[in-house]
Amino acid sequence: MMTFKYSNSVPKSNENATADILKAASDPKVISFAGGLPAAELFPVEQMKAASDKVFDLYGQEVLQYASTLGYLGLRKEIVKMMKERAVETSVDNIAVTTGSQQAIDLVARMLINPGDVVITEDPTYLAAIDVFKSYGAEMVGVPMDEDGIKTDALAETVKKYPEAKFIYTIPNFQNPTGRTMAIERRKELIKIANEADLPVLEDDPYGAIRYAGEFLPSLKHFDTEGRVIYLSSFSKILAPGMRLGWIVASQDFMAKFALLEQNADLHADNLAQYVVAQFLQDVDVTEHIKKITDVYEHRATLMLQEIDKQFPKNVHHSIPQGEIFIWVEVPGVDTKQLFDECIKHDVAFVPGSAFFTNEEQPGTFRMNFSNMNDEQIVEGVKRMGAAIKAVQN
Amino acid sequence: MMTFKYSNSVPKSNENATADILKAASDPKVISFAGGLPAAELFPVEQMKAASDKVFDLYGQEVLQYASTLGYLGLRKEIVKMMKERAVETSVDNIAVTTGSQQAIDLVARMLINPGDVVITEDPTYLAAIDVFKSYGAEMVGVPMDEDGIKTDALAETVKKYPEAKFIYTIPNFQNPTGRTMAIERRKELIKIANEADLPVLEDDPYGAIRYAGEFLPSLKHFDTEGRVIYLSSFSKILAPGMRLGWIVASQDFMAKFALLEQNADLHADNLAQYVVAQFLQDVDVTEHIKKITDVYEHRATLMLQEIDKQFPKNVHHSIPQGEIFIWVEVPGVDTKQLFDECIKHDVAFVPGSAFFTNEEQPGTFRMNFSNMNDEQIVEGVKRMGAAIKAVQN
Repeated sequence: MMTFKYSNSVPKSNENATADILKAASDPKVISFAGGLPAAELFPVEQMKAASDKVFDLYGQEVLQYASTLGYLGLRKEIVKMMKERAVETSVDNIAVTTGSQQAIDLVARMLINPGDVVITEDPTYLAAIDVFKSYGAEMVGVPMDEDGIKTDALAETVKKYPEAKFIYTIPNFQNPTGRTMAIERRKELIKIANEADLPVLEDDPYGAIRYAGEFLPSLKHFDTEGRVIYLSSFSKILAPGMRLGWIVASQDFMAKFALLEQNADLHADNLAQYVVAQFLQDVDVTEHIKKITDVYEHRATLMLQEIDKQFPKNVHHSIPQGEIFIWVEVPGVDTKQLFDECIKHDVAFVPGSAFFTNEEQPGTFRMNFSNMNDEQIVEGVKRMGAAIKAVQN
Repeated sequence: MMTFKYSNSVPKSNENATADILKAASDPKVISFAGGLPAAELFPVEQMKAASDKVFDLYGQEVLQYASTLGYLGLRKEIVKMMKERAVETSVDNIAVTTGSQQAIDLVARMLINPGDVVITEDPTYLAAIDVFKSYGAEMVGVPMDEDGIKTDALAETVKKYPEAKFIYTIPNFQNPTGRTMAIERRKELIKIANEADLPVLEDDPYGAIRYAGEFLPSLKHFDTEGRVIYLSSFSKILAPGMRLGWIVASQDFMAKFALLEQNADLHADNLAQYVVAQFLQDVDVTEHIKKITDVYEHRATLMLQEIDKQFPKNVHHSIPQGEIFIWVEVPGVDTKQLFDECIKHDVAFVPGSAFFTNEEQPGTFRMNFSNMNDEQIVEGVKRMGAAIKAVQN
């Protein structure tokens, strides 16, 4: 049988610790706080069906034909409006629709990283971004965070140490995995540091629209006067992730190159999904839909935090998210791999912190998700985790 | 303003000769034989709408949620059946659904090519594959063709000359751009050469199902006993390209690595499109639908060939396709760039051969497409081209 000789882009091992965790967590009797899935019961199925019917009636042949790489103009116009609500003035010429924001992360990485280049990220950060950056040969340099997001004094030092770094990757709102939000002063400071060092900033904002506490904060792109911020977002968390649709907003110079790479990657994002989402955005009150999601997630976050305070030992720290779907927990002195195994025995799961760190792992940390579990599961799951923590601490 | 420092993967120039050609050809008064678009009037719009309604009713929440990287199992089962009709026995574990077969080309290239590696192709070949291979730093080595496809004696010599080549890329059925079909003996010979040299074969088969002349020929994958053929196909030409859905069939070893890269690239292909196509395949007689396309394309091919014979000078050569959408033409002694400009003056367009060659361009060659033009346009367009050829020959 053929033994393939793979390129340097292919991981030597097929092992995937996260996949193993998600697999263990997918056992139906396990209460899983491990994934990052939106609440499926909030998906606007009937409205999507109505939008889809309308699209087939209005644009039947057009929607099934090859289309422009940068995306359906009707959808890009809707994105311009959404960006305005996010305090970013832009135009359809600065926007491309992508096959999820994951594709945008992959293509931007490919556009900027040569093997050996440094990429600066928050530490911890989104693990599928780490995987992508590493697949292009990046050396990852993490910058520590606190409750106000990335520590900009540490970032300034890191940038000084790595003047040839290729870009700063950041998730300012309700960060994955920590749930933390970058404070407004930190945002301004980050842009100042990037300007002084002439570094691009890759701002990943899939979560920002679902905020249930604190005030709206303008994105980094809002403060960008030099076209250095590449802004990414997604319909996955406000509408539906199964329709793989994200978008990128960047300078027109950058977008001209991006289009060449997107064309090579898959010609364009699925046209049916693009038309259906555009039609949905035209016909449905999205603000109301987002409010519905926000209310449910606020309720679940509040409940989970309350149960953590009740069921976990007193020395446990946790983040208090202002939006979206993650809580970051630290149980001092606990080995989270051992805790994970103990939790699986108790039929409950989370993601150990180790997956998210680019530098040294902060021991005893892990990520909990509450968006896809009902009240009963949250109460029972946190209780089981509390019991598991006590078991490994003894 | 920010000046980005791009990686080696990014073309230095934003120039895109093909994009310029397609732009010139998109003028509404131009009769375009330049693109490769399927006939939109044959898209099964009403049946797709019915499938879509059924999918929302049956799987509403599931179809809108995140899903498996390798693709919807229901669709992979349908692909197993289609592969059987193509004389390939396989299983769902050997198949991934991709965002068009373009994504599969991109990911396979990324899996196998390090900068400087040699890739062997038919010469001429699919230009977006050339672009992808080059973007990973491949050195392209083309092998000449005749009416029976790639010349296997020349291939054997090339393989001897480049024993470290990474793979052979081939389009055996109704090749893009030539419309030629690889003869059965050549298929067997190609597999023998690949076996002896221990080379992978990337078999790209987007067109094979639409055959209107000659006999069905088994794919290279059919003759593969060592898991060395990576087979690609697509729903773009048998159903609709706007729904970006292709697939890959390969050994399970290869697929394990492919899944890691597809996950990085976009997590998974659009779920709505996957469910709708699977439902369509279950509910509709696809053989009948393919027959309808085949009949129309046979008619258009026949008409275009007849008009070429009538309107073009006697010394013109052209391929006679057994299926799908392209005719390859050679007008000896003509500069095709000059001819293209002359044709645009006559409001008719094609694609000059230069775009498709990896080695030296064969002068006077170009590609004509007939799938997306009606009878009147074909007759009038070929007449205009005949006039333009006479104009540049004088």
